[in-house]
Amino acid sequence: MPGAIRATGSDRRGLSGESDFIALMRGLAIDRQARGLTDDAAVLEVGGAQIVLTHDMLIEGVHFLPDDPADSVAWKLVAVNMSDLAAKGAAPLGVLLGFSLAGNADWDRAFAAGLGEALAAFEVPLLGGDTVAMPDGTPRALGLTALGRAPSCGAPARSCAKPGDVLYVSGAIGDAGAGLALLRDGKAEPAALIEAYRRPMPDLVLGQRLAPLVTAMADVSDGLLIDAERIARASGCGVEIDLGALPLSTDFVAARGDSRDSRLFAATCGDDYRLILTIDPARVAGYSALDAALTRIGTCVERPGLRLVHQGETLPPPVRLGYEHGGLNS
Amino acid sequence: MPGAIRATGSDRRGLSGESDFIALMRGLAIDRQARGLTDDAAVLEVGGAQIVLTHDMLIEGVHFLPDDPADSVAWKLVAVNMSDLAAKGAAPLGVLLGFSLAGNADWDRAFAAGLGEALAAFEVPLLGGDTVAMPDGTPRALGLTALGRAPSCGAPARSCAKPGDVLYVSGAIGDAGAGLALLRDGKAEPAALIEAYRRPMPDLVLGQRLAPLVTAMADVSDGLLIDAERIARASGCGVEIDLGALPLSTDFVAARGDSRDSRLFAATCGDDYRLILTIDPARVAGYSALDAALTRIGTCVERPGLRLVHQGETLPPPVRLGYEHGGLNS
Repeated sequence: MPGAIRATGSDRRGLSGESDFIALMRGLAIDRQARGLTDDAAVLEVGGAQIVLTHDMLIEGVHFLPDDPADSVAWKLVAVNMSDLAAKGAAPLGVLLGFSLAGNADWDRAFAAGLGEALAAFEVPLLGGDTVAMPDGTPRALGLTALGRAPSCGAPARSCAKPGDVLYVSGAIGDAGAGLALLRDGKAEPAALIEAYRRPMPDLVLGQRLAPLVTAMADVSDGLLIDAERIARASGCGVEIDLGALPLSTDFVAARGDSRDSRLFAATCGDDYRLILTIDPARVAGYSALDAALTRIGTCVERPGLRLVHQGETLPPPVRLGYEHGGLNS
Repeated sequence: MPGAIRATGSDRRGLSGESDFIALMRGLAIDRQARGLTDDAAVLEVGGAQIVLTHDMLIEGVHFLPDDPADSVAWKLVAVNMSDLAAKGAAPLGVLLGFSLAGNADWDRAFAAGLGEALAAFEVPLLGGDTVAMPDGTPRALGLTALGRAPSCGAPARSCAKPGDVLYVSGAIGDAGAGLALLRDGKAEPAALIEAYRRPMPDLVLGQRLAPLVTAMADVSDGLLIDAERIARASGCGVEIDLGALPLSTDFVAARGDSRDSRLFAATCGDDYRLILTIDPARVAGYSALDAALTRIGTCVERPGLRLVHQGETLPPPVRLGYEHGGLNS
């Protein structure tokens, strides 16, 4: 989960407190099905089936703007959880909603409409949940738990990339971050960028097709560089990324240009909900049918860490690779 | 989920808005596995296994007091969800946590300790979740999703009681409500009542043993009368309850006496996390081994609605049977 919008106060205070707390939780999550809390989702084995589980929260003023349309907030709440399922190649089975009422019936009705739209689009049933009327003036706190059925090959891990594997991303990067920047500047065009921020479209079907072919897979939620670096770290290798290879949309280029800086922005802004994945070069033939959806952006290497190149030049990695916080599952 | 503590503002505003919103959600939750959002939990069928799913939230100032010890808040968050699993006879499989950090590392550490204690007590693994650093001054919003494996007989429904069935409760009623009243009055004794409010102990093992024997089962979370009335309504019958038969603890009687009023308080205060269940009288022999845990408190009848008797006299049902709000699952 990216924290795309955050109060300065929370940022300053949250980071160390949050990583301390996550460290405490890692100490508790000793069951191997929790995957050490380093994957996008947990994988539970029940009666021969593998269930993929994820829970992401959206907080008003932290993950969405108070004036974001309620239907798009509902869409995003479902979509960000579906993106975690996509990263594990899972087919959605159901969701549970945690909803806080803040005394605005129109907002709640629009939220319900957007939720219905998202459930229909992702073909996932609402199974239950909880609602709470919050004290006046409290920011909305929304939570969603999503369950999916793992592919028969098993849910791909984040931790099984190998040196030599090729790194791919499943679509344009940076649109959502550019859309958020437009909203912050009070702009409404290009509308496609704002739509990318408000209504991400996770790669559910593609994730299911890729699952048998990849060595590792995750979604790009906190930022391409940080999500790539997490794959490398979890796998005990390093990764080299060619910034020039990142796919940018024409709308993104129209809004921010195509420069080293705009590419660094795209690589760190997060909220993309694309897939990032590694494939053994010997298995390239297996994914040729999927090639159109994928862009090769780098390679896994022996030496740990992230190496960034642009037009043949090695760049110092930016101080901030993305959003360092995140869920108990990354 | 009971809303044991709620600001007057939320109460006034919340009730119609919340029931309107729940009605919208029922319109979306058309999958039969959601059980019409009228049961304690959803039951998902995956690869021959039945998974019981529940998600309950605890909000600071609504469901717990700002000065409740953090470890007991963690305990209660796990326990209330385990109680929903108990009502379906399910064995816990795992939990996902949604946690909001409010900038108090001591509180968070104590919460983590209490969480560890609860996970160990209920033998349930932490599988994942999400954490969010909230804006300053925001009440804590905690969510937990619990998954359980349904018993081989299937998860008992709330909706299958029949006229003639005997109504039982699995332990003393009213202790938690009496404990909350003590805390509100600034009192600390009897400590067992405060413990009952802060650290409920759901009937997980008993629920698994009862599942094959009952016609309907639920947990007493919002209040005994309202939870009994919900079983009757869902089952298309009525229920008669003998207020005099409710089991009261000696601590409860010491604090509030044994009167019609104190019994009405116990029957409506909620937060008990006992099981309420119906058994076909022809199957009484099957549960004789469990008899010690169960108290017979009433009977299901043809005529819809709730009939309350005390010492042979029919009482008008109280205006408030319990907490009318509640989760998407009751």
